[in-house]
Amino acid sequence: MIYFDSAASYPVLPVVVEALRDAFIDSYGNSMALHRIGARAFEEVELVRVQLADAIGAFKSEIVFTSGATESNNLALKGLLLKPGFDTSKKHIVTSAVEHKCIHSICAFMETQGFDVTLVKPDSDGFISASSINEALREDTCLVSVMHANNETGVINDIANIGELCVNRKILFHIDAAQTFCKLPIDVDDLNADVMSFSAHKIGGPKGVGAIYIRDLRKINLTPVIHGAGQEEGVRGGTVPSPLIIGFGAAIAEFPKVYGQLKEAQLKEILISILNESNIEFSINGNINNSLPNIVSITFPTIDLSVFIRKTENSFCLAQGSACSSTEIEPSHVLTSIGLNTKMAEKTLRLSLGHYNDRADIVALVNALSLM
Amino acid sequence: MIYFDSAASYPVLPVVVEALRDAFIDSYGNSMALHRIGARAFEEVELVRVQLADAIGAFKSEIVFTSGATESNNLALKGLLLKPGFDTSKKHIVTSAVEHKCIHSICAFMETQGFDVTLVKPDSDGFISASSINEALREDTCLVSVMHANNETGVINDIANIGELCVNRKILFHIDAAQTFCKLPIDVDDLNADVMSFSAHKIGGPKGVGAIYIRDLRKINLTPVIHGAGQEEGVRGGTVPSPLIIGFGAAIAEFPKVYGQLKEAQLKEILISILNESNIEFSINGNINNSLPNIVSITFPTIDLSVFIRKTENSFCLAQGSACSSTEIEPSHVLTSIGLNTKMAEKTLRLSLGHYNDRADIVALVNALSLM
Repeated sequence: MIYFDSAASYPVLPVVVEALRDAFIDSYGNSMALHRIGARAFEEVELVRVQLADAIGAFKSEIVFTSGATESNNLALKGLLLKPGFDTSKKHIVTSAVEHKCIHSICAFMETQGFDVTLVKPDSDGFISASSINEALREDTCLVSVMHANNETGVINDIANIGELCVNRKILFHIDAAQTFCKLPIDVDDLNADVMSFSAHKIGGPKGVGAIYIRDLRKINLTPVIHGAGQEEGVRGGTVPSPLIIGFGAAIAEFPKVYGQLKEAQLKEILISILNESNIEFSINGNINNSLPNIVSITFPTIDLSVFIRKTENSFCLAQGSACSSTEIEPSHVLTSIGLNTKMAEKTLRLSLGHYNDRADIVALVNALSLM
Repeated sequence: MIYFDSAASYPVLPVVVEALRDAFIDSYGNSMALHRIGARAFEEVELVRVQLADAIGAFKSEIVFTSGATESNNLALKGLLLKPGFDTSKKHIVTSAVEHKCIHSICAFMETQGFDVTLVKPDSDGFISASSINEALREDTCLVSVMHANNETGVINDIANIGELCVNRKILFHIDAAQTFCKLPIDVDDLNADVMSFSAHKIGGPKGVGAIYIRDLRKINLTPVIHGAGQEEGVRGGTVPSPLIIGFGAAIAEFPKVYGQLKEAQLKEILISILNESNIEFSINGNINNSLPNIVSITFPTIDLSVFIRKTENSFCLAQGSACSSTEIEPSHVLTSIGLNTKMAEKTLRLSLGHYNDRADIVALVNALSLM
């Protein structure tokens, strides 16, 4: 079975599996307990907090562990904008049409709370530029939320320039970095990020854990999404899942190496070159020169993809879009927003690669496609 | 090291460690993905959903997986009471003074949303009776939330009768079952429960996963706490943490056996009998005849417990209260609500036992106490 869906969930790295196992056995204490076994879990969690903070140029006091990037996105928008004392004359949110579905779902909720939301469309390359965000800004804009790179096309957005815009206009800037953490360099100051969301399972860590960076968190009185018993400085309730955080830490340490191998293998380039040599009609969605090396979105106008995916299901794990949209009847909002019609969106593969893939995997895929 | 803090977090059971390891290796797919590896994760998650539903007499469509009991408690109160179209003439919540701190924290938030909250005090045995809840009910009461058993005293509340009261008055009834799931028999119909919260790490499962039961969930349009991309029927966003859920399932299967051993060992009775034979002054908080076999709260009026705990920290893992209150300066709200003053609350141990404890552990503890 060849796995081409690492952007939906990256296989857990072997060192992470071992770190998790050790943590489940040895670090089972409640990290809020003062005894030795609790203190051990606490210390290990704090080491990962420092590790994550160091990886993005933040302070450890600005990092909160969550159940994943979706919860972090919820906390970013609801926690910061629905907090007591928030300036109610500023209720305009700017985000993009190609964000992860959860951002759109959170924004729909924010509209029920009196907020106005502007969805900025990408250009035909799938790119969200600072100028397009600038055009959407208003006097009452309180927050801009743009993903670092898109989960379907891999296109990397203009976040440094968007951050500069926001800081100059004193608008909060949230970046969903679920697909880029440990893949692209991130420095919260260089990017002028106020809030960032991270996920463990996109970098070979366990599902069920993620984090959020919140600038100057100690000075902010935000409203928790999960009210609890004081954990995570009162920002996020619930027993701290120390073994998962330890696994997350192991992934943060290991993934950059693994991703280096993936980049070096240049599988996207190999794929495109083999496709070019074949008789298969195809077109790439999004600017291939400004995208993550592990994600590519390809439309095959002459192939019935649903049939292909079913026919080859014992050989390949393939996705037509992001996993969370897979059970929906509607075409991908990312693809339609860059101009594909429903028919072409249905003929599109979102291929996402891992360090475990090689040239032979790519050849096998193209061979199978050419038989259609 | 003798671990006496299983109520804060139960050591992960060996079969769970193995199930988790296998799941991290084999079931890494995103359960929303339609390919084989995603489908495998999906099917395994659904098996646990059925397993959990069967364990409490519910339908699988009424079970939603969350990050833990705290998130479930948040969803119970905020999700049901802040949903669009909720009867705004009914904004009174009844709960008890001995609930887990997160319930109090959620209720404080609900007060900012215009709700009125009544905290019912326990009797001197730490018991929340149906009659005390009945006295607190008003015409505008919309929800009653009472924990099945208390996490500090182990006292089991009158939930079946409270449920009957609620169903007769058409008031929603939420039970926090974090400390009782797989320990006491639970049938949602017998208890007239509308909502129940569950945790994996209190039964030897992994931290970071739990569940909520919501009666007739499909007919209810609740407001998610974590807005997402349609996972868990739109009720709870975020990639479904399939390996954690599989580990939770392994714990649900194994824990009742383990707890049977614990009950049979009668360690609480042994402890009290040995203490009675010693010269140590002590008193039990809560009715020992109506409490969980694994939790006991004992006040030692003549012993400086902080000194004792520090002195014996290489031998025992001990807690003065629940873990989440451990770093606070204030005495346990559970103990003060049953009548202990600050001084006596500080002289109180919350001992929680596991199947791995034996008579020798108890003897060692009493011997150490008698040296103080």
